[in-house]
Amino acid sequence: MSNIETLSWHGDRWGTLKMLDQTLLPTEINIIECQNVETVWEAIKMLRVRGAPAIGIAAAYGVCIGLQTANTTDLSAFRHRLNEVIDYLASSRPTAVNLFWALNRMKAKAESLYEAKNVSEIWETLFVEAKAIHEEDRHICRAIGHFGQELVNDGSTWLTHCNAGGLATADYGTALAVFFAATESGKKIQVYADETRPLLQGARLTAWELMQRGIDVTLICDSMAALVMRQGKIDGVVVGADRIAANGDAANKIGTYGVAVSAKAHGVPFYVAAPVSTFDLSLSDGSEIPIEERSADEICCGFGKRTAPEGVKVYNPAFDVTPAEWIAGIITERGIISPVNRQNVEKMVQE
Amino acid sequence: MSNIETLSWHGDRWGTLKMLDQTLLPTEINIIECQNVETVWEAIKMLRVRGAPAIGIAAAYGVCIGLQTANTTDLSAFRHRLNEVIDYLASSRPTAVNLFWALNRMKAKAESLYEAKNVSEIWETLFVEAKAIHEEDRHICRAIGHFGQELVNDGSTWLTHCNAGGLATADYGTALAVFFAATESGKKIQVYADETRPLLQGARLTAWELMQRGIDVTLICDSMAALVMRQGKIDGVVVGADRIAANGDAANKIGTYGVAVSAKAHGVPFYVAAPVSTFDLSLSDGSEIPIEERSADEICCGFGKRTAPEGVKVYNPAFDVTPAEWIAGIITERGIISPVNRQNVEKMVQE
Repeated sequence: MSNIETLSWHGDRWGTLKMLDQTLLPTEINIIECQNVETVWEAIKMLRVRGAPAIGIAAAYGVCIGLQTANTTDLSAFRHRLNEVIDYLASSRPTAVNLFWALNRMKAKAESLYEAKNVSEIWETLFVEAKAIHEEDRHICRAIGHFGQELVNDGSTWLTHCNAGGLATADYGTALAVFFAATESGKKIQVYADETRPLLQGARLTAWELMQRGIDVTLICDSMAALVMRQGKIDGVVVGADRIAANGDAANKIGTYGVAVSAKAHGVPFYVAAPVSTFDLSLSDGSEIPIEERSADEICCGFGKRTAPEGVKVYNPAFDVTPAEWIAGIITERGIISPVNRQNVEKMVQE
Repeated sequence: MSNIETLSWHGDRWGTLKMLDQTLLPTEINIIECQNVETVWEAIKMLRVRGAPAIGIAAAYGVCIGLQTANTTDLSAFRHRLNEVIDYLASSRPTAVNLFWALNRMKAKAESLYEAKNVSEIWETLFVEAKAIHEEDRHICRAIGHFGQELVNDGSTWLTHCNAGGLATADYGTALAVFFAATESGKKIQVYADETRPLLQGARLTAWELMQRGIDVTLICDSMAALVMRQGKIDGVVVGADRIAANGDAANKIGTYGVAVSAKAHGVPFYVAAPVSTFDLSLSDGSEIPIEERSADEICCGFGKRTAPEGVKVYNPAFDVTPAEWIAGIITERGIISPVNRQNVEKMVQE
C-alpha cells in the first residue's frame, strides 16, 4: 500500500510483526501488533492475513516471535521450542500450502545449523531467513509488475477478478502488480474490479488497494463483466492463480473461468500473473487440480443477513480452472510465458 | 405458489386485495391486506409486489379498491375519483410500463361506458376488467408453460437467472412456468438458480419458489454458471425478458448476457420465455433498448453492511441485451419462435 503495509517487521529479532487486519477492510483499518506466537496463529486462522505469500511470510516471522520466549542458552531446549512453535503454527490453516513451505524452510535452515552454531547464532540466522522470505516475495512482485506492465498501454482499461494484490503478498501483488507498475511508469489506466462472490474480495480488497494507490477503479458485479467487454470497454484481463498445471491450465478463484469465457468471446486478451512457485509440474493438466467445495453459508448468509431460503441446496466451489489455450500469457517473475503450452511452461519454470 | 399466492382478490367489488410481501422473502411470509388504495400504492412503490404482470394486476385491483370510497350515485364525482385514483397509482413506479398499460386499460374501459351506463354498472364492469387482466395473465403463464415444457426432457437439468416466476406474475411465471409445467406433466428435473447480484432475486425468490413446488433446485453464485456448464451439468437455460426488440434481441436482468455467452461457448441451448406483450416492435434491435443504471448502494451495501470502500466508483446497469442469434427459441403464449429472427418474431407477434 502507499503507506499501509500488509505486514511489516519492526526492530531486531526481539521486534514485533505488524499486520493489517484484512477481515475489517474496507470499513476499518486496524493494525495487529503480534508480540506472541498465539496472535500470529489467530491472525492466520481467522484470515486476518490471507494470500499464499503473505501467509508464508507471517508464519516465518511467527517462528521468530515464538523463539523470543525460548531458552537462549540450552540448545536442546531451544530446539524443542522451535519444533513446538512450528507444529503450532502449522495447525493454524492446514490447507495453506505456502504455510508449510515457509515453516519447512525455517526448520531446514535450523537443522543445518545445530551442529556448528550456538543458540544465539541459530536464532539470528532464522531471523535473517524470515526477512529473506519476505524480501524474496517483494522482489517477485516487483519483477512480475516489471514484465507485466509491458503489456499495458497508456490509456487502456483492464479487468480483474478477486484479489491478487499487495494484500495477498509482501508488497505489490501479482495481477495488481501489473497495474501498479504500469501506473508507476507513468501510464494512465482504468481498472474494472469484479466484486467476486461469494466473499467479495474484489469489492472489499481490490477496490480498496487500487483506490489507495490512486488508480481509477470501477466496481462491478461478476455478472457485469461480459457486458462491459461487449461494450468494448475492456482492453485486457489480468488475474492471479492459486495453482498452475504443467500444461498451463490455471486454477484461480471461482468465477475466473467465466471471465475467461467472456474474454475469449469478445477477443479480449486474458493474462494470468503468478510466481513460478505457483506451478505444480506434477499435475499434467487442470483436470488433476482438486476443487475445494466450501460452506453453503458463504452464499446464503454472507454479510450479516440470510439471503436464501433455509435448507436450500447450494453448490459452492472455491476455484475453477481456465484452460491454457485461452490464456494469452502467464506473467512470472522470470518473464512472460506465451504462447502458454507445456513446452514453454517447462522452459520457464525449470530454467 | 402451491398454496401461497402472489396476489389474490377476496370477495366482490367491495372485497380485499391480498399480496405476498416479496421484500421479506425468503425469511418471512407476510400477506399484505390492501383495504385502501394507499396500501396498494405503497406496495408497488416499495417493491413488495414486483414483476411487470404482477404490478399491472395489482394496479388494476388498486383502481377497484380506490373506487370503494367513490360517490356511487353521482357520475361526475365517480369519474373524478377514478381519474384521481389512476393518477395516484401511476405515480407509484413511473418506469413500470405494465403499470401504465393496466391503468390505461381500466381508464379506457370506463371512458367507453360513461355515456351508456350508471355508476354501479361502470364500477361492476371495471371490477370484471381487473379480474380479466388477472385471468389473462394466468392463462398466458399456463400457455407458456405448456409450450415450453415440450423442450424439457425427463431427467434433464436447467439453469435460470433472476426470477421470472410466479412471484412476478399472476400464477406460474414465464421462465419458471416451463419448469412447473414440466414437473406437473410428470418429468423429473433439476434446476440451477443463479443468485443474481446485486438484488439476489435468484437466491431470495427463485430458489424459494422452486422449493415451494418441490423442484430440486441448487443455488449458485452468478460467477459459477460458466463452470457448471463446463462440467456438463446443464442441458438448457431458460430466462425471462423485460423487453424484446423486433429482431428478437432480448433485454433481461443484468447477467443474462453473460449466461448467454457461456451457453454459446458450451453448446447449451438458451431460451427466453416471455409473453407477446414483452415485444416492442418499434425497436428495430437491442441497441435501441435503453439500459437503466441503478444506485451504487445496491452493490456496495447490499447485505446489511457496507462491503466496498466509501466513495468507490460503481457501474450498476440493471439490464443487458442478449443478441437474437444466440437465442435458441422465444417461448410465448402463442408458441415458440425459432429460429429467432425478424420475420418469425413479426409472424408470431402480429398474428
